[in-house]
Amino acid sequence: MKFQAPRGTRDFYPKQMAWRNHLIDAWRRVSIRNGFEQVDGPIFESLDLYKVKSGEGIVGELFHFEDRGERQLAIRPEFTPTLARMVAAQASSLPKPIKWFCTPNLCRAERPQRGRLREFFQWNIDLLGSDSPVADAECIFVAVDLMRDLGLDSQTIKVRISHRETVRHILSKFGVADDMMLRAFELLDRRDKIEPERFVELAAELGLDPNQVERFDQACRYKYPIGRLDQLREHTGIGDQLGDLESLDAHLTDFGIADWCEYDLGIVRGLAYYTGTVFEVHEVSGAERALAGGGRYDRLIKLFGGPDTPAVGFGMGDTVLSNVLVDRGALPEDTLPKPDVFVLAGGDDAARRLPSIVADLRQRGVHARFSYRPTRNLGKLLKEAAASQARYAAIINGDTSNTVALKDLASGEQADVPIDELSSRVLQ
Amino acid sequence: MKFQAPRGTRDFYPKQMAWRNHLIDAWRRVSIRNGFEQVDGPIFESLDLYKVKSGEGIVGELFHFEDRGERQLAIRPEFTPTLARMVAAQASSLPKPIKWFCTPNLCRAERPQRGRLREFFQWNIDLLGSDSPVADAECIFVAVDLMRDLGLDSQTIKVRISHRETVRHILSKFGVADDMMLRAFELLDRRDKIEPERFVELAAELGLDPNQVERFDQACRYKYPIGRLDQLREHTGIGDQLGDLESLDAHLTDFGIADWCEYDLGIVRGLAYYTGTVFEVHEVSGAERALAGGGRYDRLIKLFGGPDTPAVGFGMGDTVLSNVLVDRGALPEDTLPKPDVFVLAGGDDAARRLPSIVADLRQRGVHARFSYRPTRNLGKLLKEAAASQARYAAIINGDTSNTVALKDLASGEQADVPIDELSSRVLQ
Repeated sequence: MKFQAPRGTRDFYPKQMAWRNHLIDAWRRVSIRNGFEQVDGPIFESLDLYKVKSGEGIVGELFHFEDRGERQLAIRPEFTPTLARMVAAQASSLPKPIKWFCTPNLCRAERPQRGRLREFFQWNIDLLGSDSPVADAECIFVAVDLMRDLGLDSQTIKVRISHRETVRHILSKFGVADDMMLRAFELLDRRDKIEPERFVELAAELGLDPNQVERFDQACRYKYPIGRLDQLREHTGIGDQLGDLESLDAHLTDFGIADWCEYDLGIVRGLAYYTGTVFEVHEVSGAERALAGGGRYDRLIKLFGGPDTPAVGFGMGDTVLSNVLVDRGALPEDTLPKPDVFVLAGGDDAARRLPSIVADLRQRGVHARFSYRPTRNLGKLLKEAAASQARYAAIINGDTSNTVALKDLASGEQADVPIDELSSRVLQ
Repeated sequence: MKFQAPRGTRDFYPKQMAWRNHLIDAWRRVSIRNGFEQVDGPIFESLDLYKVKSGEGIVGELFHFEDRGERQLAIRPEFTPTLARMVAAQASSLPKPIKWFCTPNLCRAERPQRGRLREFFQWNIDLLGSDSPVADAECIFVAVDLMRDLGLDSQTIKVRISHRETVRHILSKFGVADDMMLRAFELLDRRDKIEPERFVELAAELGLDPNQVERFDQACRYKYPIGRLDQLREHTGIGDQLGDLESLDAHLTDFGIADWCEYDLGIVRGLAYYTGTVFEVHEVSGAERALAGGGRYDRLIKLFGGPDTPAVGFGMGDTVLSNVLVDRGALPEDTLPKPDVFVLAGGDDAARRLPSIVADLRQRGVHARFSYRPTRNLGKLLKEAAASQARYAAIINGDTSNTVALKDLASGEQADVPIDELSSRVLQ
């Protein structure tokens, strides 16, 4: 009987696992130096938890099941509802601001395609308890810090930023009535998926004349550099109603990431949930889905029974990130841990001393290997040592002498080393 | 609306997560130095995969569901079937021996109790492609290496070892017929759960007379030290049919872990699956469930469609391990990463320079934090720095000078440091 991994999931053999660790270690390292603390929650939650945030419609996208107590449960498709539940439960005792990160595996019951799998890993960065745009800017900085850490640059990657309130003001200036605002955002969100003629028709239904439709369309497609809010003002006629965007603009410059960012009023990130800044991280060619997406969600903690808590954050999946790194040649070829030393014995007397020498090395933190084959042929054993990509081979003497022959497998140099100095020599 | 974590699952707030990382980092570190490579598989598998190894009876212990393509799937309750599937799929191309480890989250639909949760983490160590007892001894060494790494000792922890074939020979000597052997193992496995009188009755049904029942019972309860197979021989009358146990005994001594181990013929580990050595890691007081369990399973890879592949390994969960470490005071109180430096500004000019200084420090790998409060009161800010448990506070000058005041928050010492030396000073 032969089995395969389920559709849309992955087997991580050592090489693939080393790549995954390379990404997740970077997520962890960057999170910690930016002052975020790691959290996690259960792999499954009550189905209702996801309905509260996303409505009944979410159920079709989930792997859900019933336990023996007839509780309706679902494998987590995202971390945010768990985070909101955890914050709401301990809101009064958690010191503010709350800066949390996690790297959970998530599952979605969707059709697998490039950049979308049924199981994937997602980095979550969330900063709760501050309504200052400095928090928005810091979250964006963290995303940029990760990109730079992994060897990407501002020519390849752009963070595209918009702001719900600013766009609302612009749409209002264009003549969209308050009761049409939701439909206008919906149109903005879908504009790349519909024909230009249909766009004009739908925009006209919002009460816009052809000139306003043109300006609406243009304002959505144009990208404004950081530090050039004057251009955005001029194109949209928004005047001084830029709100938090003005302060965010200064902070992005102060954090030194202006060249990684641009304003893109076409960034919507769905219709509910976000309340202020929204942003997506994109590879500039446009060949891939967004690498990350996030924004400000000031009403969510209250929705989950907690106190009013301003919040901003983002999620970054491992699949698109991997694709971009592979395409850009920025993922190291081989990140598998290599042995420090391969210990070998050319005779039976030496072989009996081998386990205790290996055991001692490992207890001292040395990555030490040996052969499982019964051969005592030194040439064959040295070949096996080289194949293991060990840095050194340590050849045990058959007598009771206190030295071993330590051979540097790259240079071929060999020297006798006292056994009690072996670990420190190998770890140098 | 208020939600809780589902029954039998855990929320990992930063402190709990730091503990979890402490354990999983130790698993990873010890695995790598013992020459094992990390792997992983999907969080869910086809339900049939689990039935192949464990029969229909397993279904009730699983969280299972159907996807939209009507595939029957289940959240993984253990990693071994995934490992067997992965090895079987690539058996011809994988270099031997295969030494794999992983640290997956697993889920079982059982009643939560001390040491048993519905979601937990499990360290898996597997060595495939060697039928030598040195492989069995090395796996046991890895378990011991982990225990020692986490601060436990051989007074607290014992690896209890048995061997299926040896026990079969002993039972045969006692007069158990071949066709009663399965029932004899079953009785051995359940002996702690049944009354002594009932044990005698059931043993008699196997064809043993009262004297043989007594010897059977005694041999199961006695613990034999490593290096004292002569005692085991004498008690059981097994003579020279000890098989691999003789060689294993020598290897355990050679690896220097004889005092961590003992033979316990009462260790069974279920009725199917294992074919040779079986072992469990126990805390000696007996207050906890087994910390780990494993053994040799030479027939499993073939069962999953692969070639005949000898294999030995074990699994260690995080819940019992945590309980033992907490009870023994061996788990560090606080493993949360602490900030290297808290950067603060006592005036508006300094505050404008803060983000770029923080950004630069973080890019150089420094864990740097700052206050989100608008205050410029140095006293308050220094208090916040101390509360963050940062090692240093860096106080930015309001002028354009190239130095900051660096204060060691433990000693109170303060010195002016050039900004471009700040990261190296703080990381010293």
